[in-house]
Amino acid sequence: MQASFGDDNKTALIKTSGVLLIVGGGNVEMGLLKELKNAGTMVIAADGGANACARAKIVPDAIIGDMDSLDGRGDWEQKTRIIEITEQQTTDFEKCLYSSQAPLTIGLGLTGKRLDHTLAALDVMLRYGKERRIVLVDETDLAMLANSAFSFAVSPGDRVSIHPLERVVFTCSKGLKYPLDGLELAPGERSGTSNMATNGRFTIEPAPEEKGAWLLLLDKRHLAPLILKLTR
Amino acid sequence: MQASFGDDNKTALIKTSGVLLIVGGGNVEMGLLKELKNAGTMVIAADGGANACARAKIVPDAIIGDMDSLDGRGDWEQKTRIIEITEQQTTDFEKCLYSSQAPLTIGLGLTGKRLDHTLAALDVMLRYGKERRIVLVDETDLAMLANSAFSFAVSPGDRVSIHPLERVVFTCSKGLKYPLDGLELAPGERSGTSNMATNGRFTIEPAPEEKGAWLLLLDKRHLAPLILKLTR
Repeated sequence: MQASFGDDNKTALIKTSGVLLIVGGGNVEMGLLKELKNAGTMVIAADGGANACARAKIVPDAIIGDMDSLDGRGDWEQKTRIIEITEQQTTDFEKCLYSSQAPLTIGLGLTGKRLDHTLAALDVMLRYGKERRIVLVDETDLAMLANSAFSFAVSPGDRVSIHPLERVVFTCSKGLKYPLDGLELAPGERSGTSNMATNGRFTIEPAPEEKGAWLLLLDKRHLAPLILKLTR
Repeated sequence: MQASFGDDNKTALIKTSGVLLIVGGGNVEMGLLKELKNAGTMVIAADGGANACARAKIVPDAIIGDMDSLDGRGDWEQKTRIIEITEQQTTDFEKCLYSSQAPLTIGLGLTGKRLDHTLAALDVMLRYGKERRIVLVDETDLAMLANSAFSFAVSPGDRVSIHPLERVVFTCSKGLKYPLDGLELAPGERSGTSNMATNGRFTIEPAPEEKGAWLLLLDKRHLAPLILKLTR
């Protein structure tokens, strides 16, 4: 795995060929943060997310945001790179995304806790999640944006929730209690939450040429196998 | 305040001229649940939400849902009305809504905790929140659907988040740090989270003829004055 800081002063591009972790200001599971860091994940703190890093005794590779929530900035400046972006058109999460590149990005502390932050993070997912693979993890769930055929294995009986972020038509599914065959889901109209894996492995297939995106929501205990699948 | 059970066997309509509380299966703040019940609020448990009522030593006026999450059904049948609705096209929250009428409905334990439940609840808000006033409360936030001019008072510096559930154009706002004047918000494009009340009182005004709906998200400590405003 290689990590580098770009030379472009405007975008301050941070790149990794491995997994990138973005830590937000919501509830962050300390154990998971430490484990991912120890496993070699590159860590960007989104503004006040650095406070969670401090509690976990982790120095992030960079702190990015408008810096209105960062405690102890002077101390951080001695230890890591601070990228202050003052525009107020985007959230700190989005600033982290447009300043970075990674084949897989995991977000902690961006959903859960405050509903307005959660909704803003999902909006960002919809803008960036089609071009790059992003998985958000909160206290209970993980959420991955998908817009093409996807197959994964959980345990029989595990919940598999499909929430449309845009109108999307599915050709078929395999291994789900409520099949998606020919089903049209749309925000505010029909969603596929609380579906269930019947035998463990499941497949979701959108219609050909379908461009709509949906969130796949699973219990967060599936994070490790999902990372393995997405980095294979 | 009057409450009555409808005679229509199909919809089992529950009506109140006061405040209706729908209790879901997520995290429910026991103190708030008890206080609202003691204040005379009518209580419907959405399926497993009855388990939270049991913990709070409250008997709901009805339990509505597909009953796949209800503990101790036999005991409940002695105490209250159980309305079992088996269709799997809607969530338990939606079953509670289409089975009831109230000028103001408050939802507890429907957002927060599990992200898939939260998203499904917001979808339901979009379907029902234009016709009836609904406020969802979780561990941190309250969320109200709005689609017309709205004015409310918080404290100077308090956050006021506006999250579009549909494309919506605003004519103007008053009392907000980032004015909405002429602004177009849309899911996945631009949202107005983390705005702030400058002087306390704020007003949000959509464009004339605008039909799009947005969520107003505030800290949950504003629930009491919001109820007062909405029941005046």
